[in-house]
Amino acid sequence: MPLTPRDELTIRIDQLQRHLQSQSLDAALIGQNIDLYYFTGSMQGGLLIVPAAGRAVYAVRRVFERAIQESRLEEIVRFESFRQLPDLVRGAAGRTPRRMGLEHDVLPVAVRDRIVAGFPDTTWADVSPAIRTIRAVKSPYELERLRASGTLSAQMIDAAVGALREGMTELEFAARVEAAARMKGHQGIVRMRGWNQEVFFGTLSSGEAAAMQSFPDVPLAGQGPGPASPLGAGWRRIVAGDPIIVDYVAALDGYICDQTRTLVLGALPEKFARAHDAALAILADIQAAIHPGATPQDLYRRALARADALGYAEHFMGHGALRARYIGHGVGLELDEWPVLAEGWTQPLQLGHVFCVEPKIVFPGEGAVGIEDQFAVTPDGAERLTQSEQRLFTV
Amino acid sequence: MPLTPRDELTIRIDQLQRHLQSQSLDAALIGQNIDLYYFTGSMQGGLLIVPAAGRAVYAVRRVFERAIQESRLEEIVRFESFRQLPDLVRGAAGRTPRRMGLEHDVLPVAVRDRIVAGFPDTTWADVSPAIRTIRAVKSPYELERLRASGTLSAQMIDAAVGALREGMTELEFAARVEAAARMKGHQGIVRMRGWNQEVFFGTLSSGEAAAMQSFPDVPLAGQGPGPASPLGAGWRRIVAGDPIIVDYVAALDGYICDQTRTLVLGALPEKFARAHDAALAILADIQAAIHPGATPQDLYRRALARADALGYAEHFMGHGALRARYIGHGVGLELDEWPVLAEGWTQPLQLGHVFCVEPKIVFPGEGAVGIEDQFAVTPDGAERLTQSEQRLFTV
Repeated sequence: MPLTPRDELTIRIDQLQRHLQSQSLDAALIGQNIDLYYFTGSMQGGLLIVPAAGRAVYAVRRVFERAIQESRLEEIVRFESFRQLPDLVRGAAGRTPRRMGLEHDVLPVAVRDRIVAGFPDTTWADVSPAIRTIRAVKSPYELERLRASGTLSAQMIDAAVGALREGMTELEFAARVEAAARMKGHQGIVRMRGWNQEVFFGTLSSGEAAAMQSFPDVPLAGQGPGPASPLGAGWRRIVAGDPIIVDYVAALDGYICDQTRTLVLGALPEKFARAHDAALAILADIQAAIHPGATPQDLYRRALARADALGYAEHFMGHGALRARYIGHGVGLELDEWPVLAEGWTQPLQLGHVFCVEPKIVFPGEGAVGIEDQFAVTPDGAERLTQSEQRLFTV
Repeated sequence: MPLTPRDELTIRIDQLQRHLQSQSLDAALIGQNIDLYYFTGSMQGGLLIVPAAGRAVYAVRRVFERAIQESRLEEIVRFESFRQLPDLVRGAAGRTPRRMGLEHDVLPVAVRDRIVAGFPDTTWADVSPAIRTIRAVKSPYELERLRASGTLSAQMIDAAVGALREGMTELEFAARVEAAARMKGHQGIVRMRGWNQEVFFGTLSSGEAAAMQSFPDVPLAGQGPGPASPLGAGWRRIVAGDPIIVDYVAALDGYICDQTRTLVLGALPEKFARAHDAALAILADIQAAIHPGATPQDLYRRALARADALGYAEHFMGHGALRARYIGHGVGLELDEWPVLAEGWTQPLQLGHVFCVEPKIVFPGEGAVGIEDQFAVTPDGAERLTQSEQRLFTV
């Protein structure tokens, strides 16, 4: 049960404060669970008041005693009502704020309205892009956590290889992989930031079901148990020769590892075997191209060009209008972090950026293959945070 | 894989339309996953445009083909950009809307801003209380689904009884219960509506860990694997005599069953055994008092009075300021539905209201016991939707 060291919190808050100063914001109010955890080391509910300068104040609604144990911040106070908020902010910021920041991408309108009511003369700005930019760069402490999550991710692939049997439903197969992960401390919940985005562990699906897409913005969603949960494992029975996608996310002490391997009972049909070789080649190509200064857009275009050259332009990352328009995405405490390896992402990669690369090749109505590894940007290029062998897993 | 019948959807949309008419709203835009599923039968992403009169239009961003298969609505159209929205709304409502409704309790500020930008002359209202009120009353079709979820919930308690062994960690125990549930089609994800509220299956915890509270507004949260996931099963090893709380939620085809049983290896210490008897007595008392016309507040006060008479006033539903201020809550497609059995809920219970009743008795630093069943309001009183025996489970 690692507690986030105070130095980590200080550096993170300091970065946010520099943003507030650059935007002439007097303070930011941070409330979403994961942002709270990132800046305080605790997820106990309330608001973190970050003034443009000076000490941040963690106002805890519940559970104060737990927040005190978990957070290394110096200013932790009890928070019983939104009516206290104006005084708390004035105390932290040293004056009545003229301009403040909120997390507009995740904050519900009704909660915003309650906060804003206490500050009739304040104007508001969205600080979520700044938070996402700060969170995109992982510290050595966070990389250590992400490596541990990578170890769990490899154990999950091992568990999948050990559990796979002909004739089991995807749900039966998934249950065994999930149980193995939970026994080793997987937190269960996989958090996503995007509105309406959700996964349960990820995607585990087989044959034609693996080629199905659904509401989340991912290349392969699977069938799921039904229309009320239309993604992930479903009722399909696995048979020999099916390409099986195990795109299952590890989540340990908050930190996520997103890894995919393709499994098969027996041998893959030639068409899928060739496509899997292509996915491996694309992954190797992108992995070699990661370095500080490269742009996410460069990597995305490179992957598209490689897929095209290999003859998979029409099958890469989905099909038709629903093709995923990226080749990877940032990963950390949430599954959908920054940077995104996609068109328009032209800010160069920085040391400590962590993202997955997930070439997937999809044949609608037939099946899908793919591979996904997670990388950290290092001075020399990329550190692979995932640990499973980069190959097809034949059982 | 049940598809929601068209009649169900028609009745639900009709109720929302009556609300829109009563509030002089020209239309409502529904976007949150579960509200979309409730009104369309599909969770494929986009917006449902509900005019005050006339046909609702389901505008689907992704995946259109899947929405067509899953939803029995007649008007399903492709939705590629928010720029289409004003025309779609004018088409559905028959004119440029002057006043429209949104789900303010769940809609992020940034998404609202994008929607609103297309309607410069429109004013906005919150329709989420109306949606929650409509959704609180379950149809016979929904009660059938909730009974099926109750069956799964009983199977989960059976699995827990079968899996419990001295010395296992809570996580190991949880993994086995979760796996049993998933093999029977549990959808995995348990959805909550409240901002920042989350659970993974629910709470499974033992001894002093079961008495811990955390950020979600529940009486017993457990320790969890660490500060980044501070609820549910953790690393504590279960020993004989520990009261073990299995407050694990079934979720099948969207519909949730919230049930709690207390388990013990060997015998419960006298203090906990007496408290468990008290919880059983309170549950029986409330169960007998449920009938159309009773108010949730009545039931809450009755439970408090009974707990007081039994000598547990200081230990009922938590402790100190963090005590849960309810004795139950609505359950359906989300875990935190209406009505809430709490102070201030004075609208009488209606036929088809579904809620849990969860008397829990907590000794901080020592442990907790409790029981929870889920009920539907019937003409005669209450139908118990949970199926496990109402007793302590000794292993």
